[in-house]
Amino acid sequence: MHMLLEILGLAAILAILPASAVALAPVGAETGFVLNTFAFLIWGALVMWMCAGFTMLEAGSVRKKNASVICMKNIGLYSITALAYYVIGYNIMHVDVDGGFFGSPSLFRGSSADEIALMNAAPDAIDQARETLLAGSSGHATMSDWFFQMVFVATTASIISGTLAERVRLWSFFLFVAVQTAFIYPIVGAWTWGSGWLAEMGFQDFAGSTIVHSTGGWAALSGAMLIGARRGRFRKDGTVRQMPPSSVPIVTLGVFILWLGWFGFNGGSQLALNSATDAVALGNIFANTNIAASAGLVVALVLSKPVLGRMDLLATLNGVIAGLVAITAGPDLVDHQWAILIGGVGGAVAIAGLRLLETVRVDDGVGAIPAHLFAGIWGTLAVCIAAGGNLFVQLTGIVAIGIFVFGVSTAIWMLIDRLIGLRVSPSAEQLGKDFVELGVEAYPEFVAVPEADDDD
Amino acid sequence: MHMLLEILGLAAILAILPASAVALAPVGAETGFVLNTFAFLIWGALVMWMCAGFTMLEAGSVRKKNASVICMKNIGLYSITALAYYVIGYNIMHVDVDGGFFGSPSLFRGSSADEIALMNAAPDAIDQARETLLAGSSGHATMSDWFFQMVFVATTASIISGTLAERVRLWSFFLFVAVQTAFIYPIVGAWTWGSGWLAEMGFQDFAGSTIVHSTGGWAALSGAMLIGARRGRFRKDGTVRQMPPSSVPIVTLGVFILWLGWFGFNGGSQLALNSATDAVALGNIFANTNIAASAGLVVALVLSKPVLGRMDLLATLNGVIAGLVAITAGPDLVDHQWAILIGGVGGAVAIAGLRLLETVRVDDGVGAIPAHLFAGIWGTLAVCIAAGGNLFVQLTGIVAIGIFVFGVSTAIWMLIDRLIGLRVSPSAEQLGKDFVELGVEAYPEFVAVPEADDDD
Amino acid sequence: MHMLLEILGLAAILAILPASAVALAPVGAETGFVLNTFAFLIWGALVMWMCAGFTMLEAGSVRKKNASVICMKNIGLYSITALAYYVIGYNIMHVDVDGGFFGSPSLFRGSSADEIALMNAAPDAIDQARETLLAGSSGHATMSDWFFQMVFVATTASIISGTLAERVRLWSFFLFVAVQTAFIYPIVGAWTWGSGWLAEMGFQDFAGSTIVHSTGGWAALSGAMLIGARRGRFRKDGTVRQMPPSSVPIVTLGVFILWLGWFGFNGGSQLALNSATDAVALGNIFANTNIAASAGLVVALVLSKPVLGRMDLLATLNGVIAGLVAITAGPDLVDHQWAILIGGVGGAVAIAGLRLLETVRVDDGVGAIPAHLFAGIWGTLAVCIAAGGNLFVQLTGIVAIGIFVFGVSTAIWMLIDRLIGLRVSPSAEQLGKDFVELGVEAYPEFVAVPEADDDD
Repeated sequence: MHMLLEILGLAAILAILPASAVALAPVGAETGFVLNTFAFLIWGALVMWMCAGFTMLEAGSVRKKNASVICMKNIGLYSITALAYYVIGYNIMHVDVDGGFFGSPSLFRGSSADEIALMNAAPDAIDQARETLLAGSSGHATMSDWFFQMVFVATTASIISGTLAERVRLWSFFLFVAVQTAFIYPIVGAWTWGSGWLAEMGFQDFAGSTIVHSTGGWAALSGAMLIGARRGRFRKDGTVRQMPPSSVPIVTLGVFILWLGWFGFNGGSQLALNSATDAVALGNIFANTNIAASAGLVVALVLSKPVLGRMDLLATLNGVIAGLVAITAGPDLVDHQWAILIGGVGGAVAIAGLRLLETVRVDDGVGAIPAHLFAGIWGTLAVCIAAGGNLFVQLTGIVAIGIFVFGVSTAIWMLIDRLIGLRVSPSAEQLGKDFVELGVEAYPEFVAVPEADDDD
Repeated sequence: MHMLLEILGLAAILAILPASAVALAPVGAETGFVLNTFAFLIWGALVMWMCAGFTMLEAGSVRKKNASVICMKNIGLYSITALAYYVIGYNIMHVDVDGGFFGSPSLFRGSSADEIALMNAAPDAIDQARETLLAGSSGHATMSDWFFQMVFVATTASIISGTLAERVRLWSFFLFVAVQTAFIYPIVGAWTWGSGWLAEMGFQDFAGSTIVHSTGGWAALSGAMLIGARRGRFRKDGTVRQMPPSSVPIVTLGVFILWLGWFGFNGGSQLALNSATDAVALGNIFANTNIAASAGLVVALVLSKPVLGRMDLLATLNGVIAGLVAITAGPDLVDHQWAILIGGVGGAVAIAGLRLLETVRVDDGVGAIPAHLFAGIWGTLAVCIAAGGNLFVQLTGIVAIGIFVFGVSTAIWMLIDRLIGLRVSPSAEQLGKDFVELGVEAYPEFVAVPEADDDD
Repeated sequence: MHMLLEILGLAAILAILPASAVALAPVGAETGFVLNTFAFLIWGALVMWMCAGFTMLEAGSVRKKNASVICMKNIGLYSITALAYYVIGYNIMHVDVDGGFFGSPSLFRGSSADEIALMNAAPDAIDQARETLLAGSSGHATMSDWFFQMVFVATTASIISGTLAERVRLWSFFLFVAVQTAFIYPIVGAWTWGSGWLAEMGFQDFAGSTIVHSTGGWAALSGAMLIGARRGRFRKDGTVRQMPPSSVPIVTLGVFILWLGWFGFNGGSQLALNSATDAVALGNIFANTNIAASAGLVVALVLSKPVLGRMDLLATLNGVIAGLVAITAGPDLVDHQWAILIGGVGGAVAIAGLRLLETVRVDDGVGAIPAHLFAGIWGTLAVCIAAGGNLFVQLTGIVAIGIFVFGVSTAIWMLIDRLIGLRVSPSAEQLGKDFVELGVEAYPEFVAVPEADDDD
């Protein structure tokens, strides 16, 4: 038998097999390991790119006197996230006790022992080390999973920076980000993707309409309520002043970056790329993600004038974000017609939410709360309408995460306020955070239009 | 035999095979299905990113008073494309009757029945569902193909927005885009990639020098001729006024984005990633695409001064686009030396075309007609010179598509003009479309240099 | 036996194998060939994208009067690199004689004979051609390797354009780039990645802290010393004038692009994607790359004020680049805790290096020398501290490459100066290179703040 096979060779075996038999060959284990790992990394890189999208969206939306600081905040928050989530957050989110978030075995996660053994194996021991790894493996390299999860955490922090733009102090913001990415989000993550109590209940949130986007949104809302509106935003006569954006093309670029990155955000949440099932799911995820975003924009475009009383370009662009957030809870499951509806309603929610915030006089620098929090809630409910699911469980998840994040965030913001102060001084706000906090303006060579008096 | 194999195990079989036999193992069917699908999605994502590239190129090229509207047009056209091509266009382009473009079985395409069965299969039925899918499959997930095709359609629409910038009405443009992406392009697509009459004749256009780029270019030319030049573009004394770009770095960014995205545009047009042949072809495609673009820039850089009478940075950047468009008809086939020639001549065509348009007084906001239409024609002819082919067939395709697209586009533009008007009012053009159509300018905080009088 | 197998089919064989046996199946040769090729292309595309990152970083860092030219330089250098490295450089770097750099068999590299045979094979000869290719193959398509190597070369040239910004003549710079990418870098590459004498000594430089980044840095330093500082940069009273950046958001975008692209830079340097070992290595590479960049930013942020005497946003962003450069010599090897240290020290090196250059009055337009040269040296030493290695060999490589590149670059710069002049005239520098060399400014519609007198 040995001899026969040796003589025949695999090629000969394959050559004599009917084509249909070859067609049935499944993905091999090592190929699957490679593909799963590669998927985490490439989709994760697209999600990392979303950080640049948030930065551009926010830098273009704020006034030019605050554009440098918002850049600093966004690239800073990504850096802090990587360190805080590596040292603390990931360990909290993925302890082996279901639903728990204490007892992490190690503050420094890294490659598994089997992976280290493979990397260090002598040439003639590599096959054995490979077999050991694949036999015991979860199907992907450990740190590729860490990378993919880490970029998700950064998204929650990016949401906050937009809402609080132009008034929160740089270092206070960084301090909150450290807590958010080391503790708050990881606890929410432990409840759900860490196999915790919400996962056990059957909470459906494929890529994180609630887990990521509402978590960021609640923390942003809590901060916005405590820190108050920008000077001059809400006039004494009850009208609302629209702050001029520093650069609309930069905002648009940011939205395109987010749109692109979202394919990684939703696509990567399939968590695998080693079967035909994954491939089919990914096709649907890409189509639904794109269709929902498109519908979000079209609906926001149409509703802007009637609801807001003005053709609002930034609000329309926000419709894209809202459509994306809304589909995020179930892009693998819903039919494409549903994606149009979910995204379109998402766009409407964003426009209506913007109006609501103006009415209750909560100031959101870039409309992040309507797009991420409100549309996130809608999406988490919609998946269960569109694809079946338990509405009660969905509501439980939405409410529990909302109460937890809003409550803890409020406490943290208040503590930071007590310690070092949340808000820049009125004169710093007038002069611009760029000048006061960084000493360099975003566009120092350009003559600025004199600003309208903030104090009317 | 069963027992023997069970005892041996696959690992043992493989272990005793000579290395050369293992080396011959072909890509398995499921692995191929995964790779093909993944390729459509990742290359498609790069093509989607080209929309951001067109947006930046155009937003930086127009005057600042029209930069917001061009952003709105570009992200809007991408959204409209996704919906129109999903509901109508894709069904027209891919009916099962060769060359036909009516009789689509369904207005809503989605995953195939086999794919849906796989996604919904109970755990113990998954293997059977997988086998059924793979046995009957075209080798990739249905919606991954839709996604890749959809982003191509958006490209044709992006070309138009650039040419007509600064004067076409927002809603009129959107209306044309809906018709273009639901009907005009899909009919051209049905003739070619939909296995229609041009495909049967042997028309060679690998990734769409003619099918995509000239289609967009003809529609743009038709619109430009009907709508007329921007105020002040062609002076009474016969000289041509160069409109100042609002931001050269943003234009450059756009060109880099397009260059990057083009690897997806041409690479994805290999339509598969499941064989060594695909891999070799992809290597050539990337090298040729990059070399042609480089040659396009260098030639345009050198020719700018002698042909245009000025060192024209934007025209030079346009040489990159022209080089890319020119190589698009055959990047898999031609030798790399040919790629230098094809791209270089493409750059020359772009510069000469710009001069031609100025001479015949057709106003193209960003030089899209020279880069996409003229260089597209050159590329479609060049592939047949460089790699063999039937020049008559190539000319037939170029002419037939030209007559069809130019004719139908003209009719549609005229109809829209009759219905709601094509062009903004002279005063709106003077004030800027941003202020009139959106109420928000792109850079409201920056003091503008007083504009030269348009009416000299 | 034939009959038996035919009856059983591969599916049957696989079905009767124990699951653990299937789990052990290695990546097949053709699948590996596809994956390796795809990896070179997708990672290479990310590195190509780094060119856009350098362009944005530099265009935003220079004064607005020089922002167009720096765009032209960067997209031009990428184009020149593609052509020069294709025709000459690649052939020098990869001659088959160890350590040699003459004797290239061909000025035009292309697909191998086996690859061409496969591409042109008749349908019934494809299997044979495929087997021949895979049996003799290096495991990937030839031109995918060329593409990946080519984008690395462009990086070295990008470094130079930043340092010499605002004063080097456009055509003089292009001439140097042609020499750098056709000869200087390829010779360094031949010594190392081309299996030359430094490779034989065991020089460790995974993705090119020294080979790429210091090579660019030495050429930049040599140019900066010869060409002198920008007018007004170093005042007579000994103080240093900080030149205002034209756009901080554009700089930030550039840094994000570089960060993203670096995953391709380091990830692709694994040179394969066809085994579990590669997957594990890639997971570590991504994690370490990201962590080091993050640490670089945080350290630079903290050190900016005490070391430079000012909160310097651009210097802080430079900390990201320095962290990335520092980890580049060994991202596959070092533990993640080491990545924090290596990147963090890299950030400190960048800040200290900036101070050093100001002290010795060498003018670096964007801080490229501290980030690429100084942090590159640190990283090349650090890998041997963190992961074991021969410090003497590392020092030999650093010094040999330094002497060679600095020496040859100096000679070339001097020759160019003699031939056509290195530096624009004082009046051109005052007016701005955009106006003088291109005739178009970057932001012609925006009113500029009057510039401080350069001549104090």
